[in-house]
Amino acid sequence: MKQFPNRVVLDETHTPKSWYNMFADMPFEEGEDAFMLHPGTMQPAKPEDLYPVFAEELCRQEFTRERHIEIPKEVRDYYLSYRPSPMYRAYALEKLLDTPAHIYFKYEGQNTSGSHKLNSAIAQAYYNKKQGVKRLTTETGAGQWGTALSMACAHFGLELEVFMVKISAQQKPYRKAIIETFGADITLSPSNTTNAGRGVLENDPDNPGSLGTAISEAVERAVTSENTRYTLGSVLNQVVIHQSVIGLEAKEQLGMYDVYPDIIIGCAGGGSNFAGLMSAFMGDRLTGKAKPYFIAVEPAACPSMTRGRYAYDFCDTARVTPLAKMYTLGCGFMPSTIHAGGLRYHGMSPTLSKLYHDGFIDEARGAFQSEIFKAATIFTRAEGILPAPESAHAISAAIDEANKCKETGVAKNILFGLSGHGNFDLGAYMQYMEGNTHDYAPTDNELEKGFASLIKTNS
Amino acid sequence: MKQFPNRVVLDETHTPKSWYNMFADMPFEEGEDAFMLHPGTMQPAKPEDLYPVFAEELCRQEFTRERHIEIPKEVRDYYLSYRPSPMYRAYALEKLLDTPAHIYFKYEGQNTSGSHKLNSAIAQAYYNKKQGVKRLTTETGAGQWGTALSMACAHFGLELEVFMVKISAQQKPYRKAIIETFGADITLSPSNTTNAGRGVLENDPDNPGSLGTAISEAVERAVTSENTRYTLGSVLNQVVIHQSVIGLEAKEQLGMYDVYPDIIIGCAGGGSNFAGLMSAFMGDRLTGKAKPYFIAVEPAACPSMTRGRYAYDFCDTARVTPLAKMYTLGCGFMPSTIHAGGLRYHGMSPTLSKLYHDGFIDEARGAFQSEIFKAATIFTRAEGILPAPESAHAISAAIDEANKCKETGVAKNILFGLSGHGNFDLGAYMQYMEGNTHDYAPTDNELEKGFASLIKTNS
Repeated sequence: MKQFPNRVVLDETHTPKSWYNMFADMPFEEGEDAFMLHPGTMQPAKPEDLYPVFAEELCRQEFTRERHIEIPKEVRDYYLSYRPSPMYRAYALEKLLDTPAHIYFKYEGQNTSGSHKLNSAIAQAYYNKKQGVKRLTTETGAGQWGTALSMACAHFGLELEVFMVKISAQQKPYRKAIIETFGADITLSPSNTTNAGRGVLENDPDNPGSLGTAISEAVERAVTSENTRYTLGSVLNQVVIHQSVIGLEAKEQLGMYDVYPDIIIGCAGGGSNFAGLMSAFMGDRLTGKAKPYFIAVEPAACPSMTRGRYAYDFCDTARVTPLAKMYTLGCGFMPSTIHAGGLRYHGMSPTLSKLYHDGFIDEARGAFQSEIFKAATIFTRAEGILPAPESAHAISAAIDEANKCKETGVAKNILFGLSGHGNFDLGAYMQYMEGNTHDYAPTDNELEKGFASLIKTNS
Repeated sequence: MKQFPNRVVLDETHTPKSWYNMFADMPFEEGEDAFMLHPGTMQPAKPEDLYPVFAEELCRQEFTRERHIEIPKEVRDYYLSYRPSPMYRAYALEKLLDTPAHIYFKYEGQNTSGSHKLNSAIAQAYYNKKQGVKRLTTETGAGQWGTALSMACAHFGLELEVFMVKISAQQKPYRKAIIETFGADITLSPSNTTNAGRGVLENDPDNPGSLGTAISEAVERAVTSENTRYTLGSVLNQVVIHQSVIGLEAKEQLGMYDVYPDIIIGCAGGGSNFAGLMSAFMGDRLTGKAKPYFIAVEPAACPSMTRGRYAYDFCDTARVTPLAKMYTLGCGFMPSTIHAGGLRYHGMSPTLSKLYHDGFIDEARGAFQSEIFKAATIFTRAEGILPAPESAHAISAAIDEANKCKETGVAKNILFGLSGHGNFDLGAYMQYMEGNTHDYAPTDNELEKGFASLIKTNS
């Protein structure tokens, strides 16, 4: 076996030319393919039902069982400005932990948006541009998706309106600034420019906003404006497909050194990052070629996989979107804003949810803030990379697994996804250093209130 | 000629194994080698004179005429975690400008500290560690150097005290946070922990601090504490040597595609970034192999090359350091804080100064803030990378040169240095978008006041 360098960066000729769609290899039971229900009829949704909302090719990708989807030249050209992303061996962290484990991480933070979100943003912008769409809408909370999409729209010459949660814009003025530097328009949500926003403001003029309301406003704007479509940065299978580029590269990078991961760890909010990292390895598992152990890490504050239910639920709180079959806390669940960073979504990608439900994802864990910032600080000092709080969930679990290896003496290969950098999250790091980080998990009563918002369906 | 990709990332086997020292090829006249004068005797300083301040090997590097200095394995190993840094062809910017020019840029922002400063920080930390030094001191204003050195010290297990200009710490709390996350101690300057700081506070208890005072405090702490040394992130020839890794890589990356730059552009504050980028190309020019055109871009607000004098001057305002022969505005010159970002230093690297004085650097230009933020915004939208305000000085000149190529129809190869990202400078971008960016250049009277601080020497 060749010595693994600190960092492996593939030559561009090795970047994937196609995305991989896990749907192609996932076992579906008869009639189990209805991932989405039309919110009006409660009947299985078809690609055409989504045409007013998303670009047509993206609607097609939402349902297709095609195994490989060619990455368009325009998208791949842009990928090559920041991809292939580097694969690191965390030698310094291993030494610090005194573990026999080999720890690898795939780093998606080396682009201005700071995270993996750009992988799908550039694809979604491209397909909309190709269809002749002039203007996109979206929402953003933590800001990674809004930044990524503003980059993509600047590149393809598309207009963009970002509905930014009002309280987030106040807490993260720099995120707002970078999105505006890329030329996008920001509307603070709730706004008085949509029915959804006005409805909220009538009841509560000082409402600080929520991701749910922002989604409702962005969707409403898209379907009521000419030549305008909506985009979403996670949850959907189209996004999972685009993010497969992470895992395809990761498998090739490790393969060059005859390394195959025993354990694969990712943080999971909407699920797109972990789904992307696992893709090629999960393909091996679905087809019986290998059996790595998959661990999803979510915030204890928003525990959709660890404490949620597998059910059809709305993707937003205002109940205007299709229903998706997923692990969910109920669209009425209000995630605590105590928890820093993203990963505050009531549901989980239907693709990831099914893989978990069917036992292909082995384990889901909840992590507290104090744990993840402790892990982030250890990692930063050892490896010299400041992780996003989201990514720190994965680091925390990777350290736990490496410590187990120390106890057992077994030298496992641990791969985790470092989905983004924390350069825009230093306010949260400051709170941690000042001792103002609070751990939180919803009570059973709070969860029950969320579950009460789940509607009855036939499934 | 092979088609140049968007981005070229060298294989690690191509990373330089030695730094290149321009001193080896620069023509010196008899007796002209006295770059530094001892502040007590005003006689030429020797390496040993600097031992109380810097690690011994660094003192040696300050004076040596050796052409190639081997990069120690420990330093190169760390380099490989973020180097070789990528070389980009700015296709989107070329298209936007409709220029026949080919625009290339070398990007040093892909590490957590966000700039090229890490290249020297890791080397300086290593040589101190090797010598048995336990604790380093330094100062930081804009924060790039402090962040880089805190990363390097965390890696090698060295203690670090950063004297941070008080007003900078208030304006950039996130820079303070990231330095502390890496485990360094921050002392706000002026402080009451040094004679230099107390002296300032006695006269002016509300003094907001300056880089000059912070340097004096950091040097004082180093020379009065056990097993402690001081480090400086620019100006010195040791730093210029370490930064040569940028230019060595750049030449190899362009050479793979048979490209040689006609014009090479860098921003210049203390000069380490531009000196690093130019190194290998300047070596060609000094030895008659090629004659690229070199342009240094500095703020009009702090015009050491464009309006300064070539003289021996102190490196700090408190006059405790050796004197260096350089282009300077006088150590008593107070750069306006109106100008965003770094590049606010009264002097210029003696190495760069001599190259400019001897005609090897062809041109120096001053740039106003409105120009550089306009260029930065154009670049960000086209290329998807948010530049540091410092780096935007180089972008502004590159755009000007590309526009000249459009007028003349000549397809020149333009290379500029993108020394860092602007993720920590979004406050300045916000000011620009809000129309609160002010252009400023010192009056002749203000310059004369600075020059009056120059002392008379024999040179």
